[in-house]
Amino acid sequence: MYSIQSHDPRHPANLICSLSNQFFHKEWCLGTGGAMSIEDETSNCIYVTPSGVQKELMKPKDLYVLTKGKEKNQYDPVYTPPLKISDCSPLFLACHEHKQAKAVIHTHSQNAVLITLLYDKEFNISNMEQIKAMPSGAVDSTTGKQINLSFHDNLCIPIIDNKPHEHDLLESLEKVFNEYPNACAVLVRRHGLFVWGPTVDKAKIYNESIDYLLGLAIKMDQLNIPM
Amino acid sequence: MYSIQSHDPRHPANLICSLSNQFFHKEWCLGTGGAMSIEDETSNCIYVTPSGVQKELMKPKDLYVLTKGKEKNQYDPVYTPPLKISDCSPLFLACHEHKQAKAVIHTHSQNAVLITLLYDKEFNISNMEQIKAMPSGAVDSTTGKQINLSFHDNLCIPIIDNKPHEHDLLESLEKVFNEYPNACAVLVRRHGLFVWGPTVDKAKIYNESIDYLLGLAIKMDQLNIPM
Amino acid sequence: MYSIQSHDPRHPANLICSLSNQFFHKEWCLGTGGAMSIEDETSNCIYVTPSGVQKELMKPKDLYVLTKGKEKNQYDPVYTPPLKISDCSPLFLACHEHKQAKAVIHTHSQNAVLITLLYDKEFNISNMEQIKAMPSGAVDSTTGKQINLSFHDNLCIPIIDNKPHEHDLLESLEKVFNEYPNACAVLVRRHGLFVWGPTVDKAKIYNESIDYLLGLAIKMDQLNIPM
Amino acid sequence: MYSIQSHDPRHPANLICSLSNQFFHKEWCLGTGGAMSIEDETSNCIYVTPSGVQKELMKPKDLYVLTKGKEKNQYDPVYTPPLKISDCSPLFLACHEHKQAKAVIHTHSQNAVLITLLYDKEFNISNMEQIKAMPSGAVDSTTGKQINLSFHDNLCIPIIDNKPHEHDLLESLEKVFNEYPNACAVLVRRHGLFVWGPTVDKAKIYNESIDYLLGLAIKMDQLNIPM
Repeated sequence: MYSIQSHDPRHPANLICSLSNQFFHKEWCLGTGGAMSIEDETSNCIYVTPSGVQKELMKPKDLYVLTKGKEKNQYDPVYTPPLKISDCSPLFLACHEHKQAKAVIHTHSQNAVLITLLYDKEFNISNMEQIKAMPSGAVDSTTGKQINLSFHDNLCIPIIDNKPHEHDLLESLEKVFNEYPNACAVLVRRHGLFVWGPTVDKAKIYNESIDYLLGLAIKMDQLNIPM
Repeated sequence: MYSIQSHDPRHPANLICSLSNQFFHKEWCLGTGGAMSIEDETSNCIYVTPSGVQKELMKPKDLYVLTKGKEKNQYDPVYTPPLKISDCSPLFLACHEHKQAKAVIHTHSQNAVLITLLYDKEFNISNMEQIKAMPSGAVDSTTGKQINLSFHDNLCIPIIDNKPHEHDLLESLEKVFNEYPNACAVLVRRHGLFVWGPTVDKAKIYNESIDYLLGLAIKMDQLNIPM
Repeated sequence: MYSIQSHDPRHPANLICSLSNQFFHKEWCLGTGGAMSIEDETSNCIYVTPSGVQKELMKPKDLYVLTKGKEKNQYDPVYTPPLKISDCSPLFLACHEHKQAKAVIHTHSQNAVLITLLYDKEFNISNMEQIKAMPSGAVDSTTGKQINLSFHDNLCIPIIDNKPHEHDLLESLEKVFNEYPNACAVLVRRHGLFVWGPTVDKAKIYNESIDYLLGLAIKMDQLNIPM
Repeated sequence: MYSIQSHDPRHPANLICSLSNQFFHKEWCLGTGGAMSIEDETSNCIYVTPSGVQKELMKPKDLYVLTKGKEKNQYDPVYTPPLKISDCSPLFLACHEHKQAKAVIHTHSQNAVLITLLYDKEFNISNMEQIKAMPSGAVDSTTGKQINLSFHDNLCIPIIDNKPHEHDLLESLEKVFNEYPNACAVLVRRHGLFVWGPTVDKAKIYNESIDYLLGLAIKMDQLNIPM
């Protein structure tokens, strides 16, 4: 069963609110920008932010709770607040469905927007220690755990063009799933960043690491340091 | 009836104080700079910040409370603290009067000052996701709700020249009301930004979104990225 | 009588500690850098920060308390913590003595250091709204209150060269007192900023406003915007 | 005897957690990056951060506690959390062993990464007031206290190349110990900064001061100001 009220700070509804507040103060989610979803491992419900709510003021009762329906790609609301659901929700559900994501983070990070204006189809970076916090896509055959990238490996984040409506990005996102099977993130030109992960902690760590690497790449550009 | 003491964090006097504190920490209101006004929907009173008070230390008892007088454009104080009223108050009252604003935010944001030195009469930006948080000026004829800008739309913020005294900006502000009927903000050269909205939440969201877009435009200029 | 323990947040010992903490988080006082003094109007005692203490951890019991001695420029400690007094203390006392300062703030602001590398003898700025938070040096003959600068006025902050020991800056500081009788601040090359004021609130407001203006000037330089 | 639970905020386990949180908010330890160790003077135990934990969420129970073994350079765990120990731990232990460090701080500071891309073998800086917070390596023969650098002295921080595994940096680090006997820090190219000190307070002050100086040097480069 789902719940939206819990004293556990690790409950998905509380995590979305505390992370939304943190991301607001990182200036990633200003002016109601950005969105997030978390899939609860016990109830299999997916918690999704509404649209139009100031991220630092998000409350558990503002969140949508969805459950998997009988049809493919169908999700039914089990809890509906008096608010519109985030326009990103089809993108989030696709990440949960096709990438086995347990959490998806979307921000309007200025680093992300600027990188999409400096790079065309992909952002690539290697030889940076922080890359080691990112997944390679490969899995250790004995432990079943994800293997992270090594220092000399290349991190590639595909860039797609923005569309007037966020749900219209679904086709481009699914193309990314096919063409970049190891990607855990996609940059949307003049818009921001989507990051997904096998746990909410991993998604947050990937999101933070990517933003750090994007920020470094921008400063290197300003200082005329080649990549 | 008006009040200046309330336990409700959404009371206008408390909102002005909590937002002033937040804006101080955003570095928008340093050295007592900036000001704010909120019109209370129940009492029709307008709460206005005093001048010369450090924004992070603002208290409800420091605020002026004004009520609409019998004459056009006349407002009478119903609560007067032992402080001077913000020199911006005639500008704020004009926004409440002519633009049906319920809240007006004025900051000395460095992004705002710098943009007025990079652009002459107007700041224009389009094709940025964050623009979708801004109002188009149009209203949905069935719901009566404001329609926001779309991704490809142009956001135009007029720029006016500063004057030695803030109240002398009134003529230029009224000219903006006439020439840019859809504007919800005006930049003042070498001074800062004024933003108004139909609710205090909207005014805050517009203010945050504009500052985000101004900041992006400045970074694009530094990185030689064309608009 | 002096005291170092008080529940009043406006007590000088508490103000030095809360402002030191605030200035640490502004990155003005990293690595124990910076210092502050406040003269208590009731006891005439001067509270001075010690050297070598992390500014975010400063406690009232860490502060020196000095009282005016019988000789000119002589101050005797009435409370001595088990720490060295700030090496700036002769400069602070000169500001209290010759400029009737009730508070002196010294930071290692990066904006201050950079401006001293961009300008030679003086930093001048005019036509910026924030200048109106700064004192002109003139006093209103009827009210006895300080008159602030107007928008078009010039704010001039003299720059002096650094010396190996802070107390060796005294001669240059006294020269500034003579040559710039209206100055309320001095920049020290490759070192930082000293600001004094007739109250601790004024000194803080001047310090914040100057740092804001220095920051704007640096960004204007980066964006090739002429002053 | 060691303990991992204490109400004393100055207990090593609590200090590592509060500093890790502070360093996360300084953006030095994003995405689980960075690490720290503190040697407890009373128990001679060394507390070391685990790998893979978000720094703002670090808890005392997550830390490793090591004690000196009978063999040279051998340390045995006396408390083992269900986490991997930081891959930096051999580097930390070398600092404790060979440099008599009581604390070692490792961050992924962007300033540190960028400086290693602007400078080759060493970063040198002089004539900056903040240098006076840094140790010269010399000791006062009467007091036995470390003597800090003077304003005109040169601060030299050696730069070493990164390796795929952090423990493989040990050889380069030991070479730094030999070639730069007065160094209290080393920059690792495309990785970050390691700083050690005779107390945790000193290590923190050195780390803060170095990052401040690196940041200044980068801004000077951007503003075309020669060093």
